[in-house]
Amino acid sequence: MNERASNLLTGIEKRDIRSLSKAITLLESSLQEDALDANDLLDACSQLAQKEETHRIAITGVPGVGKSTFIEVLGLRYIAQGKRVAVLAIDPSSSRTSGSILGDKTRMERLSTEANAFIRPSAAAHTLGGVASKTREAIVLCEAAGFDVIIIETVGVGQSETAVRDMSDTFVLMMLAGAGDELQGIKRGIMEMADVMLINKVEEANLAMARSAKSEYRMALHMLGEDDYNWNPEVYMMSALHGTGIEEALHGIEIHKAFINFESRQSDRRAKQNITWFDEAMKVLAYQRFYAQAGLRERIAEMREMVAAGKKSPLAAARALNQA
Amino acid sequence: MNERASNLLTGIEKRDIRSLSKAITLLESSLQEDALDANDLLDACSQLAQKEETHRIAITGVPGVGKSTFIEVLGLRYIAQGKRVAVLAIDPSSSRTSGSILGDKTRMERLSTEANAFIRPSAAAHTLGGVASKTREAIVLCEAAGFDVIIIETVGVGQSETAVRDMSDTFVLMMLAGAGDELQGIKRGIMEMADVMLINKVEEANLAMARSAKSEYRMALHMLGEDDYNWNPEVYMMSALHGTGIEEALHGIEIHKAFINFESRQSDRRAKQNITWFDEAMKVLAYQRFYAQAGLRERIAEMREMVAAGKKSPLAAARALNQA
Repeated sequence: MNERASNLLTGIEKRDIRSLSKAITLLESSLQEDALDANDLLDACSQLAQKEETHRIAITGVPGVGKSTFIEVLGLRYIAQGKRVAVLAIDPSSSRTSGSILGDKTRMERLSTEANAFIRPSAAAHTLGGVASKTREAIVLCEAAGFDVIIIETVGVGQSETAVRDMSDTFVLMMLAGAGDELQGIKRGIMEMADVMLINKVEEANLAMARSAKSEYRMALHMLGEDDYNWNPEVYMMSALHGTGIEEALHGIEIHKAFINFESRQSDRRAKQNITWFDEAMKVLAYQRFYAQAGLRERIAEMREMVAAGKKSPLAAARALNQA
Repeated sequence: MNERASNLLTGIEKRDIRSLSKAITLLESSLQEDALDANDLLDACSQLAQKEETHRIAITGVPGVGKSTFIEVLGLRYIAQGKRVAVLAIDPSSSRTSGSILGDKTRMERLSTEANAFIRPSAAAHTLGGVASKTREAIVLCEAAGFDVIIIETVGVGQSETAVRDMSDTFVLMMLAGAGDELQGIKRGIMEMADVMLINKVEEANLAMARSAKSEYRMALHMLGEDDYNWNPEVYMMSALHGTGIEEALHGIEIHKAFINFESRQSDRRAKQNITWFDEAMKVLAYQRFYAQAGLRERIAEMREMVAAGKKSPLAAARALNQA
């Protein structure tokens, strides 16, 4: 390990936030000369981060559902318990337009001033290996830096959820009270990943509607069946803004934590997640090696022209490159 | 080309539906001994299917939005114009539960009895190369078999839309009238792909709501900006069941077809789509070649065990395999 990586590692071990922040930036770098240091640092941190006591909580839901407000409440609660809290935010920007979920600087205003809190947006959307690959690495670094609770925030657009489920111990899905046909197919794939479901923005005016939504969700979750560990997800009603139902929601997350900590379910889940991570990383690296072949770029460019001109079918062109 | 592939090709050229159906089954086969025939057949059909006059229409929307009812109306209309219509349905089953959008046998009852119609569900969800890779190949075969209009039906769950957009000339998004907060982020990525938007199930009771949704969508589409060809998507209100607004909706699709047929926009769009297809196919084949390395399966199994046991970090294990 060279000096830069070694200094960052020492900083992380000393729980220095600036070193952690620089190290995450290094991981996110696409420069060739940063790759080796990033690898060394990550490998060293994975060894440091072997402890199972951390809690990785994913919070997902559509924009406007109140994720930040809830994460602030949740984070401050853990800090009051003497824990250290890292918040990692993933922004799966859409393909044609761009945007940032951290654009609003006033988000998590109180949490961001706490000494034991660390808030960090993820890298850009077009990383090789998917939107969330760098977040997974950032979790390892945060845990090496002594953070006990890692909150992963993501916008529920259906692309990154599977990846985020695959890096969390507890997957929290936030829903809006008063939204009409939420049981439509569009959220089904996400719903079946939920360990805890929160209906937010429940107020006097929409209470009856929220109650019926709650029982519909419970029924739907029941119909979806149990996960590998026979966990039955619960649904809570709350208003993060008005502070109602918060205790029950926080308690619901704690119950799930207690559940997965029992009989090494958490280490089992993490072992499975690591295998998934390994499988994906292997594919990405295999790609990179394929593309690195001498002369391949030129041949790809030629084939693209032939395909565009209709002189070769896309599949025949792809096969020609892979037979070389 | 061996006898089986050659017979199927002759059948397809003669517009024999049974041959077409068998050929698609061959493409979808995962058997090693079918791969070569499938490749030969597809290459031959891509040469046959060079004509630009076909119209590939994608229809997407949440379950219950009324896709089948609309496709039946649309298909029968084209058949009345003397055209031949193929409907390919993609079912992106969710990861933990499974289901089929063709489960309901009564779908497209009238269209399915027409001699000039061909209705076919797609292969299973877990094909290498994504949910829709076989559909793209099926389009080539249908066009070789002389179908003029190819309708691709898919459930709007956000995973397959980009792939489906990449194989269609006209992307039609169907929305439900009366659903509350449809402008939420969850549909944004899909909305910006729409060439034509249809609000279905508009009735007397929800007319006012549908009208305000229409103007919201128009505004949103306007804000999203224009596509590569400066097309401005239009929004239509209809009820496929009651037959209201159908003419306008069908006309909207025809206007888009006329637009893309102008100044070789369609061949340009298809050339770009074929390059995307080529790029994806190249990746899939590169994977397959990587996995086919002697002894790799055993080494992967070993690495998985080490990763699961926490003896090696997922990334370090993946790198070790790729340095061999």
